[in-house]
Amino acid sequence: MSKLTDVPKRILIGRALRSDKLGETLLPKRIALPVFASDPLSSVAYAPGEVLLVLSVAGVSAYHFSPWIAVAVVVLMFTVVASYRQNVHAYPSGGGDYEVATTNLGPKAGLTVASALLVDYVLTVAVSIASGIENLGSAVPFVVEHKVLCAVGVIVLLTLMNLRGVKESGNLFAIPTYVFVGGVFVMIAWGAFKGMVLDDTMKAPTADYTIHAEHQGLAGFALVFLLLRAFSSGCAALTGVEAISNGVPAFRKPKSKNAATTLALMGALAVTMFCGIIALAMATKVRMAEKPATDLLSNGVPVGDGYVQNPVISQVAEAVFGKGSFLFIILAAATALVLFLAANTAYNGFPLLGSILAQDRYLPRQLHTRGDRLAFSNGIVLLAGAAILLVVIYGADSTRLIQLYIVGVFVSFTLSQTGMVRHWNRHLAGEQDPAKRRHMVRSRAINAFGAFFTGLVLVVVLATKFTHGAWVALMGMVIFYGTMTAIRKHYDKVADEIAAAEERPDEYVRPSRVHSVVLVSKLHKPTLRALAYAKLLHANQLEAISVSVDAAETKALKDEWERRGIDVPLKIIDSPYREITRPVIEYVKGLRRESPRDAVSVYIPEYVVGHWYEHLLHNQSALRLKGRLLFTPGVMVTSVPYQLQSSEAAKKRARKRQEWNAPGSVRRGPVAPQRPKEPSGKG
Amino acid sequence: MSKLTDVPKRILIGRALRSDKLGETLLPKRIALPVFASDPLSSVAYAPGEVLLVLSVAGVSAYHFSPWIAVAVVVLMFTVVASYRQNVHAYPSGGGDYEVATTNLGPKAGLTVASALLVDYVLTVAVSIASGIENLGSAVPFVVEHKVLCAVGVIVLLTLMNLRGVKESGNLFAIPTYVFVGGVFVMIAWGAFKGMVLDDTMKAPTADYTIHAEHQGLAGFALVFLLLRAFSSGCAALTGVEAISNGVPAFRKPKSKNAATTLALMGALAVTMFCGIIALAMATKVRMAEKPATDLLSNGVPVGDGYVQNPVISQVAEAVFGKGSFLFIILAAATALVLFLAANTAYNGFPLLGSILAQDRYLPRQLHTRGDRLAFSNGIVLLAGAAILLVVIYGADSTRLIQLYIVGVFVSFTLSQTGMVRHWNRHLAGEQDPAKRRHMVRSRAINAFGAFFTGLVLVVVLATKFTHGAWVALMGMVIFYGTMTAIRKHYDKVADEIAAAEERPDEYVRPSRVHSVVLVSKLHKPTLRALAYAKLLHANQLEAISVSVDAAETKALKDEWERRGIDVPLKIIDSPYREITRPVIEYVKGLRRESPRDAVSVYIPEYVVGHWYEHLLHNQSALRLKGRLLFTPGVMVTSVPYQLQSSEAAKKRARKRQEWNAPGSVRRGPVAPQRPKEPSGKG
Repeated sequence: MSKLTDVPKRILIGRALRSDKLGETLLPKRIALPVFASDPLSSVAYAPGEVLLVLSVAGVSAYHFSPWIAVAVVVLMFTVVASYRQNVHAYPSGGGDYEVATTNLGPKAGLTVASALLVDYVLTVAVSIASGIENLGSAVPFVVEHKVLCAVGVIVLLTLMNLRGVKESGNLFAIPTYVFVGGVFVMIAWGAFKGMVLDDTMKAPTADYTIHAEHQGLAGFALVFLLLRAFSSGCAALTGVEAISNGVPAFRKPKSKNAATTLALMGALAVTMFCGIIALAMATKVRMAEKPATDLLSNGVPVGDGYVQNPVISQVAEAVFGKGSFLFIILAAATALVLFLAANTAYNGFPLLGSILAQDRYLPRQLHTRGDRLAFSNGIVLLAGAAILLVVIYGADSTRLIQLYIVGVFVSFTLSQTGMVRHWNRHLAGEQDPAKRRHMVRSRAINAFGAFFTGLVLVVVLATKFTHGAWVALMGMVIFYGTMTAIRKHYDKVADEIAAAEERPDEYVRPSRVHSVVLVSKLHKPTLRALAYAKLLHANQLEAISVSVDAAETKALKDEWERRGIDVPLKIIDSPYREITRPVIEYVKGLRRESPRDAVSVYIPEYVVGHWYEHLLHNQSALRLKGRLLFTPGVMVTSVPYQLQSSEAAKKRARKRQEWNAPGSVRRGPVAPQRPKEPSGKG
Repeated sequence: MSKLTDVPKRILIGRALRSDKLGETLLPKRIALPVFASDPLSSVAYAPGEVLLVLSVAGVSAYHFSPWIAVAVVVLMFTVVASYRQNVHAYPSGGGDYEVATTNLGPKAGLTVASALLVDYVLTVAVSIASGIENLGSAVPFVVEHKVLCAVGVIVLLTLMNLRGVKESGNLFAIPTYVFVGGVFVMIAWGAFKGMVLDDTMKAPTADYTIHAEHQGLAGFALVFLLLRAFSSGCAALTGVEAISNGVPAFRKPKSKNAATTLALMGALAVTMFCGIIALAMATKVRMAEKPATDLLSNGVPVGDGYVQNPVISQVAEAVFGKGSFLFIILAAATALVLFLAANTAYNGFPLLGSILAQDRYLPRQLHTRGDRLAFSNGIVLLAGAAILLVVIYGADSTRLIQLYIVGVFVSFTLSQTGMVRHWNRHLAGEQDPAKRRHMVRSRAINAFGAFFTGLVLVVVLATKFTHGAWVALMGMVIFYGTMTAIRKHYDKVADEIAAAEERPDEYVRPSRVHSVVLVSKLHKPTLRALAYAKLLHANQLEAISVSVDAAETKALKDEWERRGIDVPLKIIDSPYREITRPVIEYVKGLRRESPRDAVSVYIPEYVVGHWYEHLLHNQSALRLKGRLLFTPGVMVTSVPYQLQSSEAAKKRARKRQEWNAPGSVRRGPVAPQRPKEPSGKG
C-alpha cells in the first residue's frame, strides 16, 4: 500500500480538529448512566399506568394483581439485564442486536432485527413525546388541550435541533435524568414515610372515583389473558435496556466491566422506580380506566369526554407533594424532559443503524459514510415524518401508541439472545481451558434463559396485543424488511452485471483510439480553458464543435476562431429546431457508427457559480447534454470547470458544512481509525 | 463552415418527421380567423356587461349613455385594427409588440412591453376562465355555486393538457368559435326581428328589477369620470386583437395581405357582436349592478347575497331564445368553450415570449430552445400558478379581475404603435420612391393616431381603474421588469468576467502538463472501462486512487490489482472518518500544490441506470465528489459511464419525450430552419 505521503499534515490537522470537535472524551459511569438510560428510565413514567389501565377492565378489584405483575416485570428486567451483560462482555466493540443476530443467525435474522429496530425508533419518538406531553400537561393544562399540536411541535423542534447538529455533552443528559431519578426516589421515600411513619392518608386526585368494569368478575382463561395483557403493557419498562450494549466503546476502561456495572445499576434503578410507583399508586388509590369518559365514575356518573386522565406518576406526585407544589412541578418538568431526551436517542440511533445497513447494502450506499450530513438528514427526516404520522393518527395518545411499541423490542431481544447462545456454542467448540469453558457455559445458560423468557414474552405480546395495534408494528417491519431486501437484491444484481470477468480482463471495454470533441458556444475563457485542457490529453483526433442556432452568432464565432488562429478545427452542426442536445448526440453517435472501436471524449466547458439561483441561469443545457451523453455507449464526458467569482460563496458554505457535528457522538464513543465491527442499533 | 456531412440523413429524417408532426400546413383565412380570434371575440361575452355595471352606479337612467360608449369602443377598435394592419405589412415575419418596441424604441421599452405582456397572459387566463365559468353557470347552476373550485379545476385541466402536449388542429378552434359567432349573430338577428317586426316584447330576467343608484344624478366631472370608467371597462373587448400580428408566418400566401384581411374581418365581427349585444341588452332591459346584493332591488327589496348576476350575453339569450331552450344552452356552452380557448392562447403565448426573452438573456437561457419541453413546462406552471392565485384571491369574479386586465394591453398597444411611427420615420429617411413614400406616410399617420388614441386610453384606464385594481397589474409588471433586468445584469456580468482577452489569448488558462487520476472503489467493469479510457488519453502521469474506508476491502482490492497485473499504479488514501469526498479533494489539492502549473484530470466510473429510484441507490458519492471537484481550480472531471441494462428504460423515455409537440404550433406557423426574427408576444 502506498501510504499517502504528500498531504499527511492536512489529514492530521483534519483528524485533530475532528477529535476535538467530537468531544471524544470517554464517559465515566456517572455520566454514561444518564447518557444511555434516559430511554429505559423514562419508561417508568408510563409503564405503571399501562398496567393499571389494563387491569381496570376487570374493575378496581383487579388492581390487587398489580404487585404480581410488577414482580413479573422485575424478573424479566433482571433476566434481560443479565443477558445483555453477557453481550457487553462478548462484544466489547459494541455488539448491537443487528450485528449479533447477523453474525450468529444469518442475514435474514439480522434483517428482521434491523426492521424491528427501525420500527422501534419511530415508536420511541412517538411514545416518548406523547407521554412527555401528557406529563407536562399535568402541570400545564394548555399542553394537554392541544396535545397533537404540541407533540408535533416538539418532534419538529427535536428534528430541527438534530438537523442543525447540536453540540452534545454528557451534562445535557445528566442533569434532567438525575433530577428525574432523584425526584422519583424522593417521592417514593417521602410517600413511604408519610404513609407508614406519619400515618398520613395520601389521596390521589382519582381516589374517590369508581371504575365501571367492562368485564366484572373475570375468571379462568379470560382472567389469565387479561393479566398477560397487563404484563405485556408493563414490559414497556424494558424498552431501551439494550442501548448500553451498543455503546461500550464510549466507556472508560475497563470498558466491558464498566458497561456491565452501569447496566446493572440501570436495571436496579428502573425496577425500584417501577415498583415504588406501583406501590404508591396502590396506597394513594389511583384509579385509571381504559376508556375514562365512560368507565370512570364520579359519584356514579361517568366523567365524560372532557376528562383528562393524568399519568400515574403525576397523580402519585400530586398525592405525595400536593398539587401545584414546587416539587410536583419540578418532577413533572423533569419527567417530560427525560422523555424528550429518550425520544432524542432515536434521532441518534436511527441514522447510525441506517449507515450500518447501508454498509451491508440493505439501504442506499450513500448512507454509509458515518456522520455524513446528507445521509444523516435523510434518516432524521424519515424518522420524524413517520413519528408525526403516528402521533397524528393516534391523537398523541401514549396508551394507544404503546400497543404498537413492545413487539419490535422483544423481536430483537429474542433474536439477539438466541444469537448469543450460538455465539457461546461456537466459542465452546474451540475452547479447551476448563475455567473459561465454565464461564462460557454459564453465560450461555443466562443467554438461553434470556432468549426463552423474552421469546415467551414476545408470544404473549403478540397474542394479547395483536388486534390492539401490534399488527401495525408488524406491518411496518414487513415493509422495512421488504424494501431492504429489494435494495439488496438490486445491488447484488448490479454487482453481478458489472463483475469483471476473470479471463480476458477488459477485452470488451478496451477501445483502440479516442476522438476528442470540445463543445463550443462562444469564444470566452471557459472555452479557451477547455480547449487547452483537451489539447493536453493527446487524443488521436481533436476537434471543436458548435451547434448553430443563430446564423449571425455562428458567423461571428467562426471569424473569431480564425482571427485568433486556434489550431483546433471547428465544425459547425446545424440545428434547424434550435435544439442543442439532439444534434450533439446525433453527431457523437455518428462518430461511433463510423468507427465503432473508437471512444469519444466530449469536453464541456462549465461555469461554476456559488448560489442556487445562479445554477438556474447557467449550465442547464450542459447538464442536460451530459445526462443524455452518459446513455450513449463508448463516450466519456469531461467537465472543464471555470470558477466564477461567485463560486467563492459556495466554497465557504462547504467549509462550514464540514464543521458540522453529527448528533449522538457522545453515545457512540470515539471514531475508530479503521472501520471496526461497528456498534449497531438500538435493540 | 464544415457542414456536417456524416449524419445528414438522420437530420433530414428528423426534420421530415418534425414537420409532419407539427402539422405545418399553412392556415387559410377561414381557419386562421378562429385560431387567432378566440381571445378578442370571446371578450364580447363580458365587455358589454362591464359597461352596464359601471353605468349602474349612476342608476338605470345612466344606461342611455351605453350606445355612446359602444361607439367609442368601435372607434377605438377600428383604430387598433387599422394600426395593426400596418404592423402586419411591416413585419411579415410576425413582428410582435416586444420586438417592435425593442427594435424601434430600445431595450427598456421592449422590456416594458414584455412585462406588460407577461402580466396580460396571466390575466387572460384568469379573466377568461372566470367569465367562462360564469357563462357556463347561467346554464348549469352547480358551476356558479362552486365558482372558485370550478375555475381552478379548468385551469388545472388546461395546464395538464398543455403540459402533455396535445395535438392541435385548426378545427379544434374553428368549431366552437364559429358556433359562438353564429349563435350571437342568430341571437342578434332573431332579437331584432322579434322586437322590430313581430313587435314582441322580450324581457330579460332582470328587466323588472330596479337599481339603487349609489350616486343619483351625477353630473359634470363626476359623470365624465364615470363614463370614462365605463369606456375603460368596455375596452376589454380589445384584448387579443394584436394576436394576428404575431402569427403572420402561419398564414397562406400572400401572408401579409391575408393576415390584414383576417384582422379586419375579426374587427368587424367583434364590433358587430359588441354593439348587437349592447343594443339587445337595452331592448330587453337587462339590469346589472356593481354590488347586486344591495343595489339591485326586486320590488324595492335588495336581492341579497344569494343572488347570482348572470352575464349580459346569457340574460339576452334568455330573453331572445327563452330560458333553458336548446339555443340558449348551445350558446352558453359555446361561449364558455370559446372563453376557455381564449385562456388556452395564453398557454401558447407565455412560453413562446419566454423563449424570446431568454434569447435576449432576460430570462434563464435554457428557455431559449424553442419547443423545449422542460422550458415550456416551467412557463406553463408559472402561468397556471399565477392565474390560480388571482382566481382564488378575487373569488373567480370576472368583474373584479377585469379591473386589472386592460392596463397591460394598452401599455403594449401604445408602445408598439409608437415604435411603428419610429419604424416609418427610419424607412422614410432612406426611401426615395414617391409612391412608396406616400404609402409609408399614410401608414405612419395611422400608427401615430393609433399610438395617440391608445395612449389616451391608457391614461384613462390608469386614472379610472388605478385604485380598483390596476395597481396590482402595474406591480406585477414592475416585478417582471425588475427580475428580468437583474437576470440580464447577471448574464452581462458573467459575460464580462469570462470574456477572452484580446492579447495573450490563453496565457492564464494553459497548464503545461496533466496528471490523470482514476477513482477506484472496486475492480469491476466500470472501473476497468475507466482505466482503459484514461490510458487512451495519454497523460504525463496516470495513477489510480482508492479511498480506504475498510481495511479488508482495500486489501482485497490491492491483491486483485496485482493478480490482474494492471499496469497503472494504485495509490491508497486513508480515510479515518470513512469519508470519500474530502480525502480525494485534499489529494487533488495536494497535487496542485506540488506542481501548480499542472492540470489534474479525474476519471470517475459512473453507473447509468434507467429509473429515478435507482439513481438514489447509485452514484451519489460520485455526484457529490464531482460537485466538489468543480470548485477546485485546475481540475477537469471526466465521467466514464457504464450503461447498466436498466438504462434502456431511460433511453425509451427520452425517445418518447422527443416526439412531444409543443402546443400552440398551429398559431406559430412552420419552424424556420434558421432563427428568423421570431414572432413575439401577445400584445
